[in-house]
Amino acid sequence: MQEVISLAHGNGGKLTQELIRDIFLPRFNNPFLAPLADSAIFKIDRKKLAFTTDSYVIKPLFFSGGDIGKLAISGTVNDLAVMGAKPIFISCGLIIEEGFPLSTLKKIIFSMEKTARKAKVCVITGDTKVVEKGSADGIFINTSGIGIIPPGINLGLEYVKIGDCIVISGTVGDHSVAILSEREELGFKESVRSDCNPLYSLVEKLKPYWEGIKFMRDPTRGGLAGVLNEVVRGQKFSIELWEESIPLREETVAISELLGMDPLYLANEGKIIFFIKPERAEHILQVLHSHPLGKKASIIGRVVSQPLGKVYLKTSVGTKRVLDMFIEDQLPRIC
Amino acid sequence: MQEVISLAHGNGGKLTQELIRDIFLPRFNNPFLAPLADSAIFKIDRKKLAFTTDSYVIKPLFFSGGDIGKLAISGTVNDLAVMGAKPIFISCGLIIEEGFPLSTLKKIIFSMEKTARKAKVCVITGDTKVVEKGSADGIFINTSGIGIIPPGINLGLEYVKIGDCIVISGTVGDHSVAILSEREELGFKESVRSDCNPLYSLVEKLKPYWEGIKFMRDPTRGGLAGVLNEVVRGQKFSIELWEESIPLREETVAISELLGMDPLYLANEGKIIFFIKPERAEHILQVLHSHPLGKKASIIGRVVSQPLGKVYLKTSVGTKRVLDMFIEDQLPRIC
Repeated sequence: MQEVISLAHGNGGKLTQELIRDIFLPRFNNPFLAPLADSAIFKIDRKKLAFTTDSYVIKPLFFSGGDIGKLAISGTVNDLAVMGAKPIFISCGLIIEEGFPLSTLKKIIFSMEKTARKAKVCVITGDTKVVEKGSADGIFINTSGIGIIPPGINLGLEYVKIGDCIVISGTVGDHSVAILSEREELGFKESVRSDCNPLYSLVEKLKPYWEGIKFMRDPTRGGLAGVLNEVVRGQKFSIELWEESIPLREETVAISELLGMDPLYLANEGKIIFFIKPERAEHILQVLHSHPLGKKASIIGRVVSQPLGKVYLKTSVGTKRVLDMFIEDQLPRIC
Repeated sequence: MQEVISLAHGNGGKLTQELIRDIFLPRFNNPFLAPLADSAIFKIDRKKLAFTTDSYVIKPLFFSGGDIGKLAISGTVNDLAVMGAKPIFISCGLIIEEGFPLSTLKKIIFSMEKTARKAKVCVITGDTKVVEKGSADGIFINTSGIGIIPPGINLGLEYVKIGDCIVISGTVGDHSVAILSEREELGFKESVRSDCNPLYSLVEKLKPYWEGIKFMRDPTRGGLAGVLNEVVRGQKFSIELWEESIPLREETVAISELLGMDPLYLANEGKIIFFIKPERAEHILQVLHSHPLGKKASIIGRVVSQPLGKVYLKTSVGTKRVLDMFIEDQLPRIC
């Protein structure tokens, strides 16, 4: 292990996993944390609750399709939603750099409130810290969230079987490409908007089909390929993705190519990966298509038995290649 | 209102209150947030839960009596404890500057775990973000906490009556003085240790007397005088403090004097202010004295009727002076 923290320790890839395995898990060793899911699950009386936290350090603060405020609500809502939890309460911890414009703070808080209302969550507790000029970069936001898992939804990798379908709720890579387009040093402004959005309404709409859903994840840092790699690690199955079925915007592909990046590894902030019983896949796809945030949903692959614990891509020309876990951070401060 | 954020917006004083009143409350307008207590209270079935969040940006990271890890657990545990909530679950959101030593991170996580064990809480969910060198100052930690309010404890300013006793669980100002002593530019190293400690065990020990406790607060930013000012604002009572009864360490007084600061306004991280029925005050004091964290507990004042909404100090020479809410931040990054 390196002796200092590098940007790659925060990108959700191999070094992040090392940090969790070598530093956090040996200390915070408890059955709630151990599954390393998007939220921790616990019970209060008979109610199943989910609890999650995320800090947002995105740069720039405002981008096509969103801003740090919208992201801070959406990201935490989505970490609850993929556990099947209906998000209810959010906390808001601000760290602000001295000299930050109050008007910008107002815009961000306005955006948080608008997104919270859309997601039907309440921001019920908060904290503000100010640090000297130069000790932070503008504003960082932490949101933690509490959700209630309704009866009828039972998710877990232990339910996943060979033959299950992998469904994505829409196009991949748009969030990262939107952020890169905004970063001035890259010099172009294409028309890709971030997909940043709260997604519980999508999960809720699938209620009649919950028994067909085995597992969900939101492919944020690490993107579709990175997050699926986390999922299959140590499992007795693999995932086969079909290149031709993965929904991609033309502009996203074009900009990714210019940058030498693979959109399958780029972060999303408004997408869900579903693991679904094959006999329910078509129904679920129809329901997703009827929701504004699921119009481009697609069955993109399936759970296979060989090789174990890998994600691989069947290309349009019929070849297969392994999509490995990435190491280097291509995109610091993407969320 | 100023046009940019100043350090004073983060000190818990007048500008912090303005920020909350003018920017946060108009947006995040809901009955859970509105009381602006240390935690928000809500119900799941019949259980009353408390939820709170705090970010820690303290400088230096290690100080006499604690470190940012111990503080991040203690501070959030105490925000739950003063609502009468038994802290159970904590989240941990890290923002780390690129280049931060892994060995220092390990020490901090070790300290968090040690404090969590002492406080009987589990860290069940976490997140790590890394920002470029120069975009943060070492490490910032957000912890959010969930606690359960047991039956038999009913707290609220609405229960406070004229004549109630004000009790503090120990000496005041030690945390700030410990931090100032560590900041090298001040050039002295006195022997004051921060009081940083998780306090629920103190509240739990008072269980037989819970019906006598009306209200609790932990006097962090703003200190005893600042926090009591927040409490009395808009209330139909005032608070009279007795200078001679307020427990103070000699060294804390000496260093405060050198710096031209008033220890009554200095932050504490291991103290509770209690509002108590007069007929229960002596019993409660005895129980506090029997706990290692309450040995120097003292009855330091009472709730009075005049003048309304003020905190005043009866000095040892018999005069009275108003302890007003402070404006300027004497001590940035004290927690």
